[in-house]
Amino acid sequence: MLIDSTYPKSFASDNHVGVHPVILDAIVAANQGDAPAYGDDHWTSAFERRAKDAFGSEAEAFAVFNGAGANMVGLSLMLGRYDAIICADSAHIATHEAGAAERLLGVKLMTVPTEDGKLRPDDITSRLGGIGNPHESQPTVVSISQVTELGTCYSPDEIAALAQAAHASGLRLHVDGARLANAAAHLDCDLAAITTGVGVDVFSFGGTKNGALGAEAVVVLDPSLARAVPFLRRQSLQLASKMRFVSAQLSSLLTDDLWLKNAAHANAMAQRLADGTANVPGVTLAYPVQSNAVFATLPAEVIAVLRQRYLFHSWDEAAGTVRWMTAFDTTPEHVDDFLDDLRKAASA
Amino acid sequence: MLIDSTYPKSFASDNHVGVHPVILDAIVAANQGDAPAYGDDHWTSAFERRAKDAFGSEAEAFAVFNGAGANMVGLSLMLGRYDAIICADSAHIATHEAGAAERLLGVKLMTVPTEDGKLRPDDITSRLGGIGNPHESQPTVVSISQVTELGTCYSPDEIAALAQAAHASGLRLHVDGARLANAAAHLDCDLAAITTGVGVDVFSFGGTKNGALGAEAVVVLDPSLARAVPFLRRQSLQLASKMRFVSAQLSSLLTDDLWLKNAAHANAMAQRLADGTANVPGVTLAYPVQSNAVFATLPAEVIAVLRQRYLFHSWDEAAGTVRWMTAFDTTPEHVDDFLDDLRKAASA
Amino acid sequence: MLIDSTYPKSFASDNHVGVHPVILDAIVAANQGDAPAYGDDHWTSAFERRAKDAFGSEAEAFAVFNGAGANMVGLSLMLGRYDAIICADSAHIATHEAGAAERLLGVKLMTVPTEDGKLRPDDITSRLGGIGNPHESQPTVVSISQVTELGTCYSPDEIAALAQAAHASGLRLHVDGARLANAAAHLDCDLAAITTGVGVDVFSFGGTKNGALGAEAVVVLDPSLARAVPFLRRQSLQLASKMRFVSAQLSSLLTDDLWLKNAAHANAMAQRLADGTANVPGVTLAYPVQSNAVFATLPAEVIAVLRQRYLFHSWDEAAGTVRWMTAFDTTPEHVDDFLDDLRKAASA
Amino acid sequence: MLIDSTYPKSFASDNHVGVHPVILDAIVAANQGDAPAYGDDHWTSAFERRAKDAFGSEAEAFAVFNGAGANMVGLSLMLGRYDAIICADSAHIATHEAGAAERLLGVKLMTVPTEDGKLRPDDITSRLGGIGNPHESQPTVVSISQVTELGTCYSPDEIAALAQAAHASGLRLHVDGARLANAAAHLDCDLAAITTGVGVDVFSFGGTKNGALGAEAVVVLDPSLARAVPFLRRQSLQLASKMRFVSAQLSSLLTDDLWLKNAAHANAMAQRLADGTANVPGVTLAYPVQSNAVFATLPAEVIAVLRQRYLFHSWDEAAGTVRWMTAFDTTPEHVDDFLDDLRKAASA
Repeated sequence: MLIDSTYPKSFASDNHVGVHPVILDAIVAANQGDAPAYGDDHWTSAFERRAKDAFGSEAEAFAVFNGAGANMVGLSLMLGRYDAIICADSAHIATHEAGAAERLLGVKLMTVPTEDGKLRPDDITSRLGGIGNPHESQPTVVSISQVTELGTCYSPDEIAALAQAAHASGLRLHVDGARLANAAAHLDCDLAAITTGVGVDVFSFGGTKNGALGAEAVVVLDPSLARAVPFLRRQSLQLASKMRFVSAQLSSLLTDDLWLKNAAHANAMAQRLADGTANVPGVTLAYPVQSNAVFATLPAEVIAVLRQRYLFHSWDEAAGTVRWMTAFDTTPEHVDDFLDDLRKAASA
Repeated sequence: MLIDSTYPKSFASDNHVGVHPVILDAIVAANQGDAPAYGDDHWTSAFERRAKDAFGSEAEAFAVFNGAGANMVGLSLMLGRYDAIICADSAHIATHEAGAAERLLGVKLMTVPTEDGKLRPDDITSRLGGIGNPHESQPTVVSISQVTELGTCYSPDEIAALAQAAHASGLRLHVDGARLANAAAHLDCDLAAITTGVGVDVFSFGGTKNGALGAEAVVVLDPSLARAVPFLRRQSLQLASKMRFVSAQLSSLLTDDLWLKNAAHANAMAQRLADGTANVPGVTLAYPVQSNAVFATLPAEVIAVLRQRYLFHSWDEAAGTVRWMTAFDTTPEHVDDFLDDLRKAASA
Repeated sequence: MLIDSTYPKSFASDNHVGVHPVILDAIVAANQGDAPAYGDDHWTSAFERRAKDAFGSEAEAFAVFNGAGANMVGLSLMLGRYDAIICADSAHIATHEAGAAERLLGVKLMTVPTEDGKLRPDDITSRLGGIGNPHESQPTVVSISQVTELGTCYSPDEIAALAQAAHASGLRLHVDGARLANAAAHLDCDLAAITTGVGVDVFSFGGTKNGALGAEAVVVLDPSLARAVPFLRRQSLQLASKMRFVSAQLSSLLTDDLWLKNAAHANAMAQRLADGTANVPGVTLAYPVQSNAVFATLPAEVIAVLRQRYLFHSWDEAAGTVRWMTAFDTTPEHVDDFLDDLRKAASA
Repeated sequence: MLIDSTYPKSFASDNHVGVHPVILDAIVAANQGDAPAYGDDHWTSAFERRAKDAFGSEAEAFAVFNGAGANMVGLSLMLGRYDAIICADSAHIATHEAGAAERLLGVKLMTVPTEDGKLRPDDITSRLGGIGNPHESQPTVVSISQVTELGTCYSPDEIAALAQAAHASGLRLHVDGARLANAAAHLDCDLAAITTGVGVDVFSFGGTKNGALGAEAVVVLDPSLARAVPFLRRQSLQLASKMRFVSAQLSSLLTDDLWLKNAAHANAMAQRLADGTANVPGVTLAYPVQSNAVFATLPAEVIAVLRQRYLFHSWDEAAGTVRWMTAFDTTPEHVDDFLDDLRKAASA
């Protein structure tokens, strides 16, 4: 499927968009002369400093290529050979990373059904019955997604409670933060308030869905874990030789709150879209809108008409639930045009 | 170690350089509107077509992030659970990919000592004694590097002979082509003449060391193997979501022979450097110069003086062998300045 | 926990029992002179012939040490790097093999909730939506347990229907037959009727729980798969050097229907136990009794009293469900004594 | 290849022999009534106590099925995801375990050529250059075989020196002790003198080649490592359900010095065989005889004649080196008959 210039704005994913101009400028600006490979360069140092500004002085940040890479490198720091990860059954690591957790890490995913994509402390404690039993995989890490795959967010208190439940039993807390910026924007807090400040051990900070060309970070808050990152990043095929161009993107996002501007705008567009569906007959929201995703349930015929013109993903074929995503470059006009077309389709 | 603007040209690696302006322009040009993620876009289609032009109509090319990623995805197509790879003991997959072959593929590397980084057919046939013995890893793939890690090249005939030896015993031939362009430039042949035309089954085609920001390709010549690439690329953390920006780089290299211009220039600069050492007392070449690398042996004191000003890698500390690399943007002046400094150091 | 001679019969597991005297005699008889290692001996040949008699001439049987080993070797024949196994969420491979499937095979387990431990064809077809999607693990094998972990059995027709559903979509059918003998005894059919005759591709045939000291077989019905067994068995640490002593056990079980006698007796004792609980107040059966396991639900106080004297496992602490198992050497008196004690405890 | 009763004594391997009668009696004696599964039984407790007597009170011993299993479980305790093992290139883990180290552990084997199968401290220190370099596998464990695959032994001092060299750089020392008993017998020391007393961290203690039916132990001397064994043993398919029958064998070997009697006898028979070749023209010893193996080099015609009557392995086809092994049940008559036939063949 190819999109040409006559196609309207995509609502399929925040990775259908291009690169934010400030970030692209930063890439171009980094193309000056030689620089040592593998991160021993000015741009990477700058990124590391900005990460400490954003996440706290204990935060060690490591640039990688993509979200699955950030998850696998981050998780590999905390998992031995007979361990398990407790996560929502909708977690990206469980559903859309092609079995990387099982093959690359060799661990079991103890998946938990949830209503809204969010784990509760009881989901942790109720799954620890096999600890100490050599016939069972040993849960060692709790992994949550912030924003979740259903577009919902954990409050700082909710994360703190999960961290407490995990740590109380010797488990660590990992956050898949492919859309961490959107969560902070929604929660109206800084990035540390949902990571460093509430007991997270390792998390990823996504850039690609928030305007980067391709850049994610693994952030480690426990210094005893950070030592292994360079080795595991290299071995996991996530070490960029010309790293300055990845670091420059992440630095850009962490400068002048670009991460926040982009995420807040995308969130606002999703809210506008959700609000606009309120009076469209037959359309209901499947989950609360707390980020840049709108999950809506609507009749199959309406979906079919809308699809003739717009790109978006089906989420639950049987239920008639679809996902509409906005991005840093979605405009109010894009949303309003989409809503017009939705209304027409719904009333046809 | 950081290089600032007062530093002279780096001779450390072809990944110390930045991005070729034509390739950077292509990245910037790809930033127009939305495009489907994961390769379902115009730029990726264009790259796939250009790869068929360059490597033959049977060539299926897949963009990945980096060289180790290209090697691991390519090799994983041909290896089962109890298999082994025959390769030179200097092979990048054996020495500098942090054990990715062992951990990610789970296979044994049957490493062969060589004089010049190159395998011979007899190196294959002499290592097949364990075939059929369930106590031994089964050799299934021969992997060579073109250019080798010692800067040498295989002629088309040499590759054909290796392919024949491999195929005769049911093994497949893989080429780590991180510097394939430099080899073709040195051999004065097209890219198909050292891949498709001589029996290679799977190879990588490197862009990053030849002027790209970060882009490599896995190229599969056996259609029965290509089916698995999308799955293994995704699982191996090598699938770019905004793939158009990777594909645009590879397309650029395959357009108007940019790959050849860059590589031929880098090779010429290495040759100029090698030639210039001929009359420097105490400096000898360790290997034939057949690409953009010069391996030279010289007194420790001379190395030490040179290091005060230049970046380059030690290759064999004990022997006093160092590696000097050139790139697409190395100029004759860079080389001549370096030679001047070398001469001064050597005669001090 | 140690059992001394004053302890009554264990109802905890069919691996608490010792070795059937005929099998122990066979081990002793195999201790005559030298024999080639690793299976190149008379006893192993005899076992292979008897396996063909029992399972059909196409059956290739391979002796291994234990049940998890038989499962991992058998499954590894059919699974690539990005594959998944569809199985019941109660499956032994999912719950009690310490994550071996994930670590040793590197694959995802797509676990299906069931009422009675048994998969239905619809459980297969409803989980194939991700086939072809490179972001998802690809289901390649359906694995069922016969007897299931809940003591229930699949009829030959039920297995045939699963095989058909699996094969129709290109998947293979694996049977964890740790208690295959008990299933055949319950179903009153021969071993081929629930394996070779109904489309199973690979299965295990358990000896240890049916009177052996420690012996299981991997049986492969698809000749294209059998070639890999010797390599994977060796690599999976399941190749006995003095294999004659393992083969002799399996031969013994397959001679004069010892497998059937042992299993039928154990099943009969479980039925006697189940029947005896019918008129015990407060005790109900949790699952149909179709093998040598009785799952009963009873008050916590009764369980506590019974535990003072007997060994058995809790199955569902919250529900008050326990598992009582019988074995080849459980006698009617053992059962009746147990029932007496149960009645006393229940009426206290 | 099958051996019948008319065949003479095998000189092929110490796993061609059967079970020592005392050990077989112990197995039969363990077949009394019920016992908890997985090691929670009297026989296993007894074995654990005897292991402490033999190896020291800090020694935690765990029974497993076979030698490769003992190696993989033991090594897995000490190796992370990006680690490497330094070992002789003749090491069993490198040559004859079907790539289990690479697949099951995912680590690199840094193999060292040796003259006599023995590592020297300098072999360790000279391979540590890549420590700290994220592009290279990190050496973490030194693994030696005692007896080596060439029949030679390390003295206590030699092991102490290796342990010191390893520990000085943060590596641990593992011993593959499939024939540890033969080494102690040759060195005329107790088992602790070559393990606990000289800095070994983890080792295996082989029973199968010394008269057991099939029983090996993983012995852990560092208590911080022992905690993981139950999990890794289970996951590595090395946990016997009816463990009493494995433990009884190991207990037997550790009672009344049976391990020593068997090993000393086998060694003496090898020495008798080696001595007997002294005056056979054309026959030379390839390695010092320090255990129950004789490596001899002799003319191909002599080998061919001998093979018509005797089973033994070729070691180096080109060099004409063969391996003759003795066992606990090899008699002086067996050896003398063999020597007679050798002399006849050599003088033909």
